[in-house]
Amino acid sequence: MNPYQFILKKRNGGEHTAEEIREFILNYAADREVEAYQMSAWLMAVWFNGMTVPELSALTQAMIDSGDVVDLSSLPGIKVDKHSTGGVGDTTTLILAPLAAAAGATVAKMSGRGLGHTGGTLDKLESVPGLRTNLTSQEFLDQVKRIGCAVISQTGNLVPADGKMYALRDVTATVDSIPLIASSVMSKKIACGAECILLDVKYGRGAFMDNLKDARELARRMVDLGTHIGRKVRAVISDMDQPLGTLIGNALEVREAIEILRNERPGSALETVSVELASHLLEMAGIAPDLDSARKKIRELLVSGAGLRKLGEMFAAQGGNGEVVNDLSLLPQAAIIEPVLAPRSGYVTSIHAQKIGFAATALGAGRKKKSDPVDPAVGIEMAHRVGSRIEEGQPLAILHANKPETIAEAKELILSSITIGDEQVAPRKLIEEVIE
Amino acid sequence: MNPYQFILKKRNGGEHTAEEIREFILNYAADREVEAYQMSAWLMAVWFNGMTVPELSALTQAMIDSGDVVDLSSLPGIKVDKHSTGGVGDTTTLILAPLAAAAGATVAKMSGRGLGHTGGTLDKLESVPGLRTNLTSQEFLDQVKRIGCAVISQTGNLVPADGKMYALRDVTATVDSIPLIASSVMSKKIACGAECILLDVKYGRGAFMDNLKDARELARRMVDLGTHIGRKVRAVISDMDQPLGTLIGNALEVREAIEILRNERPGSALETVSVELASHLLEMAGIAPDLDSARKKIRELLVSGAGLRKLGEMFAAQGGNGEVVNDLSLLPQAAIIEPVLAPRSGYVTSIHAQKIGFAATALGAGRKKKSDPVDPAVGIEMAHRVGSRIEEGQPLAILHANKPETIAEAKELILSSITIGDEQVAPRKLIEEVIE
Repeated sequence: MNPYQFILKKRNGGEHTAEEIREFILNYAADREVEAYQMSAWLMAVWFNGMTVPELSALTQAMIDSGDVVDLSSLPGIKVDKHSTGGVGDTTTLILAPLAAAAGATVAKMSGRGLGHTGGTLDKLESVPGLRTNLTSQEFLDQVKRIGCAVISQTGNLVPADGKMYALRDVTATVDSIPLIASSVMSKKIACGAECILLDVKYGRGAFMDNLKDARELARRMVDLGTHIGRKVRAVISDMDQPLGTLIGNALEVREAIEILRNERPGSALETVSVELASHLLEMAGIAPDLDSARKKIRELLVSGAGLRKLGEMFAAQGGNGEVVNDLSLLPQAAIIEPVLAPRSGYVTSIHAQKIGFAATALGAGRKKKSDPVDPAVGIEMAHRVGSRIEEGQPLAILHANKPETIAEAKELILSSITIGDEQVAPRKLIEEVIE
Repeated sequence: MNPYQFILKKRNGGEHTAEEIREFILNYAADREVEAYQMSAWLMAVWFNGMTVPELSALTQAMIDSGDVVDLSSLPGIKVDKHSTGGVGDTTTLILAPLAAAAGATVAKMSGRGLGHTGGTLDKLESVPGLRTNLTSQEFLDQVKRIGCAVISQTGNLVPADGKMYALRDVTATVDSIPLIASSVMSKKIACGAECILLDVKYGRGAFMDNLKDARELARRMVDLGTHIGRKVRAVISDMDQPLGTLIGNALEVREAIEILRNERPGSALETVSVELASHLLEMAGIAPDLDSARKKIRELLVSGAGLRKLGEMFAAQGGNGEVVNDLSLLPQAAIIEPVLAPRSGYVTSIHAQKIGFAATALGAGRKKKSDPVDPAVGIEMAHRVGSRIEEGQPLAILHANKPETIAEAKELILSSITIGDEQVAPRKLIEEVIE
């Protein structure tokens, strides 16, 4: 292994062999021969010169091989997984996982925590009293075998090379490289063992990719990459310019998921996207012959309450209070409920999702840095979406707070994130396109 | 100081302020806040995006300010310095330093050692029996005051940031960046204190820059940079496709310098270039009113033996045997003299300078790595230059060796470095252009 020659090749626009990529990544992960300053120089060269499909596959495979892989082969059925690139009010997992499981798919899912303006499924789940996300591998497999779904934190030593490389990218300005994002996401998803992977690539001001072109390129690269490594992969490109859900915050998002599974928010944006994603999973897994019959089946399971019951089962199986799905008052409640009032009348012309996310973080719902705790009860209830009519003095949003000193910053962020105009504008499409 | 934002700015094609460059460099040099992996990522971003003139001046000034600066203010006259980007048979310093000093210029010069295929002036000087290059600052200044010239190894802690950055560039494939080379060379030259700096930028297969375009760009940037920092700077672009001197190796190159100063090699390539460089120094220092009268003066000092006497004085002042200039047998001599014979008759159409340099290194004249010792006596005597007629079985070169086992590799390298054809070709111009 000659790290110098390896960096030089990428810098000069050459193409790496799979073997040399493997050596570079595994040596770096094992702290031998490849130094951090060599990895960071190579990452910067990749930022400038990109990677070909075979290079990216080799990189992703090497990252996977740097650690353990989850073995789901003992589970029956087709194992499906979904990954969102992250957003605000992005509660789809809590809705689609029970629906897909109720339809017969096997949902053995590992999820993450929130950081910055984005929420994380584990934080949301942990707002259910008693619920654990740190199941052992055996508990995880047993639960999925028994009820068809589980959503837990990562077990084992999955993709350690990614953790090490990501920490380096984070301090050397090499995070926003599409091939590096693609390999980071896909290495983790593939190591988690599912056969079908549905990617929800968000774009807009609350997403990692703020424009459609980049979102499309990232989706394309991840689909090609996963397919090249032998998984069934599809990507949906969806809007994250305004928050997806109406409620933002951990227990609040669990509440909205329950309300949707109770069929109490028909036609809402979050319901629409969740049903669509669940339908893609069914069709990918071959449980439904086509997308239309998949949608029909998911709708039936939603209306019948089968999805809601499955969510309650999952909460209970992970040690949580399953009664939550029938009694929302069992969820943590914030002490202060305070509206943010509209400064003028008109139509909502835009809502800056990232600022709304930061407002929720200011209230204590999210983390500024990884080690911060989150307050499960606090968050924001949005009263409007883009295109709706608002009157001066009526609520734009309602804050759920526990600390009075957090309110002013959250209010200011919300007011600065919402623009009100005289002309009604049409919101962006919820799902822009599907890539496979 | 936020290293992340600093790297991001360069990566995205922005322009740094002088203040932020200063902080980044001085913090890195002092091992605080800026990590090696951040410096290497930034260096790679510079490799791709380059630097503006103000950025490069700020970088160079910050590098200088990371350490000591040589104070030549106690010396009389105009202090001149010359820097070559390195080559094979590049013995000009030993000829121009005494000539310029004999003409009244003040030559207080710090020089380097050989590495890879290139020779170093310090190694050559140390082949003179008894000669020291590690003078103290006071000895150095006293000698220059007394005889007008000295050539020594670096004193004090000059430009430590450059040493640290160069070591990192060397293992992260960021050496061959024109702005980084320019700042590395000029920071050291400026820290050495001379008012007039003449740069000899070599191009060709034995040079750091293999083509004229890059050599021209490097020369341009170094001249602009030095001028911006307030020095009088000029660059000469000269050929290093074939070796400049006839003799290659440490004592052998001292011998060729002496022979030239004895006027025994009139019209040779090394003499021509050395006289030209010395003439530029005289004119830059204002000792001669124009280049033609400078040339005339230097020629007179060469023919009269004044340059030779000055060289002997310098050898003696640095503890060496000054008699060497009158008796070449006092220089170390190799035990084995072995010719390399021409495999066919014809015209020499090219001589690959770098391979000749490696052949000399194979014999022991140079270093593969910094810590290797050199053998002062060994080297190569070239019998031909490009364009000359050769007959089969006649010597192409003569090896001076001490170890029989080194001969085969050197021979092979020399044979593979020289091409012989049927048509006579014209050699490239010795000096391609002057940039100021």
